[in-house]
Amino acid sequence: MTVLQDIYQSRVSSKPTIVDRQDPVVYSQGTPPEELSRDRVEFFQTNGYLFFETLFDPGEVEILRGELNRLSSDPQIRQLEETIAEPDSDIVRSIFRVHELSPLYAQLCQDQRILKVVEYLLGSPAYIHQSRVNFKPGFSGKEFYWHSDFETWHTEDGMPTMRAVSVAIALTDNTEFNGPLMVIPGSHQRYVTCVGATPDNHYQQSLRRQEYGVPDEASLTELVHQGGLVAPKGKAGSAILFDCNMMHGSSSNISPFPRSNVFFVYNSVHNRLVAPFGGTKPRPEFIAARERSVPLEAQSPDYGG
Amino acid sequence: MTVLQDIYQSRVSSKPTIVDRQDPVVYSQGTPPEELSRDRVEFFQTNGYLFFETLFDPGEVEILRGELNRLSSDPQIRQLEETIAEPDSDIVRSIFRVHELSPLYAQLCQDQRILKVVEYLLGSPAYIHQSRVNFKPGFSGKEFYWHSDFETWHTEDGMPTMRAVSVAIALTDNTEFNGPLMVIPGSHQRYVTCVGATPDNHYQQSLRRQEYGVPDEASLTELVHQGGLVAPKGKAGSAILFDCNMMHGSSSNISPFPRSNVFFVYNSVHNRLVAPFGGTKPRPEFIAARERSVPLEAQSPDYGG
Repeated sequence: MTVLQDIYQSRVSSKPTIVDRQDPVVYSQGTPPEELSRDRVEFFQTNGYLFFETLFDPGEVEILRGELNRLSSDPQIRQLEETIAEPDSDIVRSIFRVHELSPLYAQLCQDQRILKVVEYLLGSPAYIHQSRVNFKPGFSGKEFYWHSDFETWHTEDGMPTMRAVSVAIALTDNTEFNGPLMVIPGSHQRYVTCVGATPDNHYQQSLRRQEYGVPDEASLTELVHQGGLVAPKGKAGSAILFDCNMMHGSSSNISPFPRSNVFFVYNSVHNRLVAPFGGTKPRPEFIAARERSVPLEAQSPDYGG
Repeated sequence: MTVLQDIYQSRVSSKPTIVDRQDPVVYSQGTPPEELSRDRVEFFQTNGYLFFETLFDPGEVEILRGELNRLSSDPQIRQLEETIAEPDSDIVRSIFRVHELSPLYAQLCQDQRILKVVEYLLGSPAYIHQSRVNFKPGFSGKEFYWHSDFETWHTEDGMPTMRAVSVAIALTDNTEFNGPLMVIPGSHQRYVTCVGATPDNHYQQSLRRQEYGVPDEASLTELVHQGGLVAPKGKAGSAILFDCNMMHGSSSNISPFPRSNVFFVYNSVHNRLVAPFGGTKPRPEFIAARERSVPLEAQSPDYGG
């Protein structure tokens, strides 16, 4: 038996490093589906993200946002471990596994406007690795420091390669004032290994505050020097799709305007989870789907209304 | 002897209120100086702020920024009570009274490009009520929650009326990414009294934020509903001037780019401090000038270089 070296090993050294991505960014080579132009495929290859300014119309947004409010005010949902509060209060910050908790969001994650694009980029059928709704409340929305999701998913969840994408659907307007997502274009091509080890059961804290998997300032400076910074902003109903290794973060939100979105992580069926590469116990199913990895099927949902 | 009621009384009730401003915004009526057009005077009257996109040229900015670095690395300056470090590190966050600690900034605060504008708006000679340099470091710059400076200066320092303006001169570029100043246009026309009686659960809030002089969310929502939000952004060398009662704040800065500025508060010589209206002991001279209130004289400095 040959033991392969983990090329994306992280949290083992006292010094950070930056290595080049070893995996493709776009896994298909044929003609893209009508939801995606050749130009956009190239843009994604180079920059690591795509912005869709009006993916959902105002009527659909209203229904999708109504579901958000229904979930966050449901006392049964609030008691689930899937529901995460802000560090210093009872305010709901995120609800996980919403593609199973909500029939509406189950449809949404299979909406062909998204799934056709995802399947082309991943070059295969996909399943939901993680889903959640995020509430960044007005006045007190906390910052999310820079991170690559893949660094965590590889180290803590056992995701083998970079063959996953995230889609964040805005359910409120994203403006310069309410802490929009910021990305470092091109950072998906580099992999920043982080310093330090990961304790078991660390996810309970890390969902509220990051302590592990935090990239160092020198590496971040280098990435920004190369790629700059972009904060795609748009109305409710816009969406941003980004590569699993994209370096991203967001500032705090002291504006009165909440920033809420639905977040789906699509993983290729050829990239299912194995044992965590950091050697820790796997995190719960609602954070990283291991058993429930059923391939999605593109639909044309009618959200009603 | 008649006892006059304090129309700007704050921190005495358990309920916040919004009252109308009782003082003029622009204290002169004649022709504005050449540094200020009639349109800009009207803009300031309505909105409470002015943005100067290129007040200082790149050569001047370099010299002014050099002085910032000199001050922050001077061991003697670091030991002064005027120098404030970040809560959890040795990194300098602000240095106060820089118009006296630095001969260069002494010239800067009397630069006629600024002072002529200030004197017109205040309708009188002015002196420096407070000066400081602010360093908002990259990656870890903290947010400043919404506040009206006047609420504090009246309550804690004994500033009688709204007849002061602040000028923030950008020594680094202000972008959407590094936590630029945000203002609520028109908020200078309203005065939000803050809640003073400390509720039982207040400690949970106070761990996160400043404890006194914090406006309530309902009042802030009303102000933003009326006036919207603006974040004037510009290159190093730009400046923003705003009324002492302007509601303003800024988000955190996780970008690699620091945000540094020099900050001067100009108070009218007819508005010198009296005993603090909140009944507390006056704050130190370097935070609120009481004895050192010498009127400034407009100069045309040559910053050398």
